[in-house]
Amino acid sequence: MPDEYILRIDCPDETGLVHKITGVLYHNQLNIIRNDEFVDKENGQFFMRTVFSGKTNPDKIMYGLQGILPNTARIYLTAKQVKNVVILVTKEHHCVSDLLIRHAFRELPMNIRAVIGNHQVLEPLAGQFGVPFHYISHEGISRETHEEQLAAVIQTYQPDYLILAKFMRVLTPGFTQRFPNKIINIHHSFLPAFIGANPYRQAYNRGVKIIGATAHFVNDNLDEGPIITQDVTHVNHSQSTAQMAMAGKDVEKLVLAKALKLVLEDRVFIYGNKTIIFE
Amino acid sequence: MPDEYILRIDCPDETGLVHKITGVLYHNQLNIIRNDEFVDKENGQFFMRTVFSGKTNPDKIMYGLQGILPNTARIYLTAKQVKNVVILVTKEHHCVSDLLIRHAFRELPMNIRAVIGNHQVLEPLAGQFGVPFHYISHEGISRETHEEQLAAVIQTYQPDYLILAKFMRVLTPGFTQRFPNKIINIHHSFLPAFIGANPYRQAYNRGVKIIGATAHFVNDNLDEGPIITQDVTHVNHSQSTAQMAMAGKDVEKLVLAKALKLVLEDRVFIYGNKTIIFE
Amino acid sequence: MPDEYILRIDCPDETGLVHKITGVLYHNQLNIIRNDEFVDKENGQFFMRTVFSGKTNPDKIMYGLQGILPNTARIYLTAKQVKNVVILVTKEHHCVSDLLIRHAFRELPMNIRAVIGNHQVLEPLAGQFGVPFHYISHEGISRETHEEQLAAVIQTYQPDYLILAKFMRVLTPGFTQRFPNKIINIHHSFLPAFIGANPYRQAYNRGVKIIGATAHFVNDNLDEGPIITQDVTHVNHSQSTAQMAMAGKDVEKLVLAKALKLVLEDRVFIYGNKTIIFE
Amino acid sequence: MPDEYILRIDCPDETGLVHKITGVLYHNQLNIIRNDEFVDKENGQFFMRTVFSGKTNPDKIMYGLQGILPNTARIYLTAKQVKNVVILVTKEHHCVSDLLIRHAFRELPMNIRAVIGNHQVLEPLAGQFGVPFHYISHEGISRETHEEQLAAVIQTYQPDYLILAKFMRVLTPGFTQRFPNKIINIHHSFLPAFIGANPYRQAYNRGVKIIGATAHFVNDNLDEGPIITQDVTHVNHSQSTAQMAMAGKDVEKLVLAKALKLVLEDRVFIYGNKTIIFE
Repeated sequence: MPDEYILRIDCPDETGLVHKITGVLYHNQLNIIRNDEFVDKENGQFFMRTVFSGKTNPDKIMYGLQGILPNTARIYLTAKQVKNVVILVTKEHHCVSDLLIRHAFRELPMNIRAVIGNHQVLEPLAGQFGVPFHYISHEGISRETHEEQLAAVIQTYQPDYLILAKFMRVLTPGFTQRFPNKIINIHHSFLPAFIGANPYRQAYNRGVKIIGATAHFVNDNLDEGPIITQDVTHVNHSQSTAQMAMAGKDVEKLVLAKALKLVLEDRVFIYGNKTIIFE
Repeated sequence: MPDEYILRIDCPDETGLVHKITGVLYHNQLNIIRNDEFVDKENGQFFMRTVFSGKTNPDKIMYGLQGILPNTARIYLTAKQVKNVVILVTKEHHCVSDLLIRHAFRELPMNIRAVIGNHQVLEPLAGQFGVPFHYISHEGISRETHEEQLAAVIQTYQPDYLILAKFMRVLTPGFTQRFPNKIINIHHSFLPAFIGANPYRQAYNRGVKIIGATAHFVNDNLDEGPIITQDVTHVNHSQSTAQMAMAGKDVEKLVLAKALKLVLEDRVFIYGNKTIIFE
Repeated sequence: MPDEYILRIDCPDETGLVHKITGVLYHNQLNIIRNDEFVDKENGQFFMRTVFSGKTNPDKIMYGLQGILPNTARIYLTAKQVKNVVILVTKEHHCVSDLLIRHAFRELPMNIRAVIGNHQVLEPLAGQFGVPFHYISHEGISRETHEEQLAAVIQTYQPDYLILAKFMRVLTPGFTQRFPNKIINIHHSFLPAFIGANPYRQAYNRGVKIIGATAHFVNDNLDEGPIITQDVTHVNHSQSTAQMAMAGKDVEKLVLAKALKLVLEDRVFIYGNKTIIFE
Repeated sequence: MPDEYILRIDCPDETGLVHKITGVLYHNQLNIIRNDEFVDKENGQFFMRTVFSGKTNPDKIMYGLQGILPNTARIYLTAKQVKNVVILVTKEHHCVSDLLIRHAFRELPMNIRAVIGNHQVLEPLAGQFGVPFHYISHEGISRETHEEQLAAVIQTYQPDYLILAKFMRVLTPGFTQRFPNKIINIHHSFLPAFIGANPYRQAYNRGVKIIGATAHFVNDNLDEGPIITQDVTHVNHSQSTAQMAMAGKDVEKLVLAKALKLVLEDRVFIYGNKTIIFE
């Protein structure tokens, strides 16, 4: 069976890009399995994702592509493979539980290298699944020191992605900039939006009829990077704050799992503060 | 065939309320078809909606209920009947079109008495359905004068409800307080929320993956009264601002129609800034 | 804190039922927290679910209710409590995983007493969560003998409900009739419906755009008892049979969890081949 | 502003197809705006949809493409343009109403040339929107004669598509084969599926929790051609057969509108009995 690769390119649009790019593949006897292309007409930006198979030398393909693409093109070429991830948690289990189960049964192309918690409560859960757990408390130390300790442990695992699975700490730009476009967060979201403490309490008080969740990349601002996936569930007046939170958790875990599937399968482009996704 | 009535009661909770209330109906030989009751335990407030049938004198029932309920109880007793509504519009047709069609084929228990526009563009549409259209421009007059003119025309129709079907004017408390709990608005909504001009443009720029709509009562603040219904639709990067707006319109018209169904069937209680709805 | 009870009654409709039933509670100084009532007008059948609190003797309440209700009334009075369940599985993990997680974190009012499999593959998973696993192979024995062995083990746990979490064996009426209205199954469903082997393969071949799941009680016919919950997810041409099956699994596990929540909270009436559910 | 074209190709897969096809466009100085490509690996079939802009002679492009593609390739090249449709109805208004509104406000790229009914009841509605209505009764004539009369009128309008908007007559293969891949039907659908008369009645009796709709092409068998779009809505025990039908109608009209959008924008390939859709 031949190898399978995923190629992602984004660059300023110009006539003939698809022809030239596929020419590089064609002349290397590679077979395109799926190709998606999109041009953001407003900004004149070209996006293309190609899945191809065949025996090849990736360096040779990259060299060929660089020769025909503008200098500003971003080119990502990866073999189809399992990615390494590290998960950060606090006390809530619902997202990390779901990911540990999917990991155990290989339902997502990821290898959970470790779970890190600023509380100890989820250590037994990780242990149940044979995944290393690191307890790194934030108590009694500065935010910067805490982040240094987190980063030191994370570094040892060389993760492709860092997943904030209900990690309830604000991360400083000093931390997030170490992992550009690699941190994925799951955030509750509401219509209308509620900011600050106890959002489900606020949602209950406001009598909202739907609650949702947003999975997104984290750049400088914890709750504001490029959105990957969003979904909602319907609620009503008879649900207490606790019941709304429970309903919200089911959405959060599904939205996070869907976002990870898209990211781990190399389907996502980050462009400015938004994403282009070829599902 | 016997008459059918809808009774809604809300009051501070106390033991025996359901028994006492249904006793009044029982002793008048009335038959309960459906009964929904809910206690907001946090606030100790009791809500009950009863559909009953039988020949009766509503005044006698009201008198009986007042005798057994606390003074602060709010009691609404209405025969099951078609309600009168007046619709306010600006230029967008999608919500008013949908309501005119439903009205023409009697799919909602409402009688559209008139459509009022601050632009003239939808006059032919109303005319097509034989519904009076009043053009009341806001140009060259003060907001208060404009609202006076609107209120004067509305008053002549004695509507049970006033529907803002994409009426793009901010209404002052002076106007809304004339129609307490009677004004229903449809509002685009997003995760995250976008405030200000051109929300679909903002949503496009932010790369949201869902857009939604909220139907709500209007009290003092145009976009903030008790929520009746909400729903969303999924969008993606390939949709332009215009296409997102189009997708949003389909949600808006369905959400508004659902909200009206609930309100017109007397299923909705307003309690503080939220709703209790027995679907 | 007072005890909390759930009362469910269904019987032929007659005038005054709500009044009489709530009278029994009122005269026992019990406080109604929530009451839902529905009359199936076609069949003249009355359904009522009442949540009440207070110190009481359940036998006294039952005696009082029997005195005022018709002989054919079905009355269920249960304290609000955790139910015992036994789960039957074959090889697929997704539903039982989800239930084991919810059990471990007490997200559903159920106690998983045991998991029984006709294959051994999920034994380690149950073990991880400290739940007894019984391997009862169907190989080399008759269907009746296998069911005898299943029933013998199940009996020792005295479960309130038996959950078929992707148990891929047809159960005979001889078995199902031992557990009337106590067996809950999760079934894939499609539009159009596909019968027979490999339904996801059939769905793929037919190019369906949604796939779904149905949780239902099992009476005589494995796939046909009263429906509790249904939901769907969208799929498209780019998904292989395996990917459609994966998407279907996420729906199946959520639909089963929602159905169990409704059943375990005593919200479900079975009436003929359908359910009345007060959510 | 340059012209915009949509090119759809499907043919047996082989290495280099994307490169060769885009080469024809590139050498004609045409600019690709969006390109979607998919290979059905099981059947080794290649599908590609390309939106391109530029001044060109379509015949020249077709000639170029034929030169580089296998003989069995199906090539569709169309300018982006409004399509002509004829709508067939019986008595129910909900789908045709929605289409007439969208047509009136140019929300879909279609021109409704005429509405044809086998009953007269919707004639005033079509008239309201200034669309010709033909009343062609099926009473007292054979099915073949009726279909001859329908076909004769349809022919005069030369429609690109024929829309069955709740046309409640079974069409014979003799009729449908005159319009291959051009007839689009909207069909109620349920889980489980109900065949025969009064499906909403059957759904009510069975206590289903969701009802749906399927838009599909019609080939030989009225309810069985390639599926274009499907969706569902949730229902519950409190809804009567009539209320379930009403809920179903809202789904039907939205599903039909979505399917038409996809078809009219040339996003749909028919392949055997399924569709490949590039949304």
